Amino acid sequence: MGTAYDELKQIWTQLHHFGHLQSIAGWDQAAMMPPKGNTARANAMAAMEGLLHRMRTDPKLVTLLANADGEVLDDFARANLVEIRREWRASNALPQALVEAQSLAAARCEHAWRSQRPANDWAGFLENLREVLRIGREVAQRLSDATGLAPYDALMDQFEPGTTSADVDRVFGDLQQWLPGLVQQVRQRQSRETVLQPTGPFAKAAQRSLSLEVMGLLGFDFEGGRLDESAHPFSGGVPEDTRLTTRYREDDLMQSLMGTIHETGHARYEQNLPRQWLGQPVAAARSMGIHESQSLSFEMQLGRSRAFAGLLAPKLRAHFGDQAAFEPDNLYRLMTRVKPSLIRVDADELTYPAHVILRYRLECELIAGSLNAEDIPARWDEGMQSLLGITTRGDYTNGCMQDVHWSGGAFGYFPCYTLGAMYAAQWFAAIRARTPDLDARIARGELGVAFDWLRDNIWSQASRWPTAELATRASGEALNPLHFRRHLEARYLG
Amino acid sequence: MGTAYDELKQIWTQLHHFGHLQSIAGWDQAAMMPPKGNTARANAMAAMEGLLHRMRTDPKLVTLLANADGEVLDDFARANLVEIRREWRASNALPQALVEAQSLAAARCEHAWRSQRPANDWAGFLENLREVLRIGREVAQRLSDATGLAPYDALMDQFEPGTTSADVDRVFGDLQQWLPGLVQQVRQRQSRETVLQPTGPFAKAAQRSLSLEVMGLLGFDFEGGRLDESAHPFSGGVPEDTRLTTRYREDDLMQSLMGTIHETGHARYEQNLPRQWLGQPVAAARSMGIHESQSLSFEMQLGRSRAFAGLLAPKLRAHFGDQAAFEPDNLYRLMTRVKPSLIRVDADELTYPAHVILRYRLECELIAGSLNAEDIPARWDEGMQSLLGITTRGDYTNGCMQDVHWSGGAFGYFPCYTLGAMYAAQWFAAIRARTPDLDARIARGELGVAFDWLRDNIWSQASRWPTAELATRASGEALNPLHFRRHLEARYLG
Repeated sequence: MGTAYDELKQIWTQLHHFGHLQSIAGWDQAAMMPPKGNTARANAMAAMEGLLHRMRTDPKLVTLLANADGEVLDDFARANLVEIRREWRASNALPQALVEAQSLAAARCEHAWRSQRPANDWAGFLENLREVLRIGREVAQRLSDATGLAPYDALMDQFEPGTTSADVDRVFGDLQQWLPGLVQQVRQRQSRETVLQPTGPFAKAAQRSLSLEVMGLLGFDFEGGRLDESAHPFSGGVPEDTRLTTRYREDDLMQSLMGTIHETGHARYEQNLPRQWLGQPVAAARSMGIHESQSLSFEMQLGRSRAFAGLLAPKLRAHFGDQAAFEPDNLYRLMTRVKPSLIRVDADELTYPAHVILRYRLECELIAGSLNAEDIPARWDEGMQSLLGITTRGDYTNGCMQDVHWSGGAFGYFPCYTLGAMYAAQWFAAIRARTPDLDARIARGELGVAFDWLRDNIWSQASRWPTAELATRASGEALNPLHFRRHLEARYLG
Repeated sequence: MGTAYDELKQIWTQLHHFGHLQSIAGWDQAAMMPPKGNTARANAMAAMEGLLHRMRTDPKLVTLLANADGEVLDDFARANLVEIRREWRASNALPQALVEAQSLAAARCEHAWRSQRPANDWAGFLENLREVLRIGREVAQRLSDATGLAPYDALMDQFEPGTTSADVDRVFGDLQQWLPGLVQQVRQRQSRETVLQPTGPFAKAAQRSLSLEVMGLLGFDFEGGRLDESAHPFSGGVPEDTRLTTRYREDDLMQSLMGTIHETGHARYEQNLPRQWLGQPVAAARSMGIHESQSLSFEMQLGRSRAFAGLLAPKLRAHFGDQAAFEPDNLYRLMTRVKPSLIRVDADELTYPAHVILRYRLECELIAGSLNAEDIPARWDEGMQSLLGITTRGDYTNGCMQDVHWSGGAFGYFPCYTLGAMYAAQWFAAIRARTPDLDARIARGELGVAFDWLRDNIWSQASRWPTAELATRASGEALNPLHFRRHLEARYLG
């Protein structure tokens, strides 16, 4: 028997092996599984969830963690121990019965939501949501007791460790100062532009072939991953075998293309996590905000840039024929068109943060108990009116029932999207500072300079440092929303 | 806490859930996984194999099994307990270290075999095979000690419980009396026939579409399964979600078509196992011989019949244009052409058993210790010459290195193929006895009468009875090779 730390490492390697099967089963569920497989799959994954929870709450871990603390460890191992302890603490904060109740309530609510949403059935949805929220509050309280964080912060800590609602309030507060004015300004400016829409239909096979080509351009390693199709695009699988999905609409090629570019960012992070440490928590992606910073580096910083439009144009022509809409300047206008709209996932880069701010504000109050589930629609409508000037009254489908997060009990996740957009702007500001001719390089298809920076500073660093230190080592400072503002002003007013 | 039997049932339900993840991961490995995922997948599946083995060898099972024996159980539960005990005994016969050594030796031998086979590298292969055989003999001895069966019979019992080499010797001995003469006679008769080959190339997409159509005709439930592609066709997944694969050659459409029909037989067995018992061993397929009897009922009894050729003809024309080769009589001649050949999996219905007999005879001696690995090629050549009149001297690729079974350590499996062919003939003799106009019905596309019989007598019965009793209940007698002989004589001399 080696040291206590070695034993912990071994246990976490086992967790990694079992987690591998769980991840692949989850990917398969979304991308491959026929409908009648659903119950058996849910039962199998619940059994595995139970096993993973039992392993993480094994009483012998208490002694192992205490002993490992006193052992001589190098920096990497020390960082790994921090992450092991974090996972251990989160698992032990929640009794098995609560974990199971949460998983069942979420599954029930989400399953019903799939038909309630198109039926605009708020009353039916509310019944399940109440139970999900009740459990969510209890989970938050127990995580809070275990971590010493405030309840909402303890939830957020699962996705974005080290960031509190005080941090989020600060950056979102800043954003709210200037973003509405910027949206106004840009809308006025764009009202004078002509934008041509590409003419479809766009055959699915051609869209898939275009997606594969663009993934290649973006450095995706096809020996270690795949592209498939699912109702909601995602990046899944395991770091050794990254599975991403997109969805195809025959009348809109941009959706699958931008979806693929976005997911490729997630995938390259996973494909470039440090191989020699895989299986240990220190080798996992740092946080969901940092993960989003990769997908948004690819989609927003790179994908929707004027230089990249020039790279896309000939590929679009090759796949769908010569259309005036594929002219690079028009493509760029298409990809940067700003228009307040109801649905978060379809929102443009400028109005997207408003959707996130709305959900964040409501979540904080829902968990604090100052807002109850039945009062969401009124507050939602109020928020949409004040943030984006559009109403959702009576329209639950495109209002507060549009996202899957709350029905799945994932309170505390939403801020990651906009934190990710800000980090992405910060990374590209750093890259641009070192490489003043970045746009010219991108226009020539030389994307390596950006990928090299991301690999050295983000991907290879995995969870070795707390997020603030990761950001400082990478870019000289912790999260600074000014880069996001500068990026938006340069792109939309420049 | 319920009865001991209830507790056993619960444990086996857990095994079913974990086995589900293992099955899907195995299917994915063959049908979806990119190459760089291989090591992580192998490690994950080995970890799961270890968990399943630990669960099946948990010391508390001894008491539970003893107590359950004394409890009041209905017939179904009693049958289930028999199967639980069989699995428990087999797992406990083998120490974890031996299971792991076997898995590693098999993986090493099989991995090397993939490149050694095309290189005709017998010397290299032999080195690994010796170790696989050494472990195989030890496994056989330990299983023999635990079951009281002879060593080879104990291996075969894993695949075909209740059937011993004495049984196999009897039916194979009978076969050897009349099969060589029949092959001679048929060859002479067929030498006067003209057979047209379909003209390719046959686009993969069209072959896939044809396969899906024929699966539909054969009653495959697409809500509970899929068709994909892999290097070696197989039927995998779980009963609730049956995944089958085929492979496409652009110059030969019959390979994918016949492969699909064969695997659909396996799949329908799985899709029609008794739903209310799924998860318990009594609800699993009876044996590999009975499983092969389903794939061969579909491929040989149904698929290669003159009546079915009439159903295939318009589908072939619709997918690949009007060719004289698609005329039903020609199709039938094509599907029943007899010619001794080197490769088992490509063999026709009549010469296939000779391949199986050869492997069976050698396996018996390999496990008994009267034959060593280095002497296989000489004995193989001798056997091929005497059974089929062709030589494989110096050609290991198409001789003793053609199959994956021995490199994978699966000694005792081969007899199942020919037992399955015999059972299939026996089932169709029973169906025909009840339905004298069977061929006319098949010709009209009314396949339900055959499927209903198989559902009532085989699929729904799962492992409720020992194989001999299953056969007797279904067809009035235990395995009787006379039906196979009659079927072959009717088809090839009729």
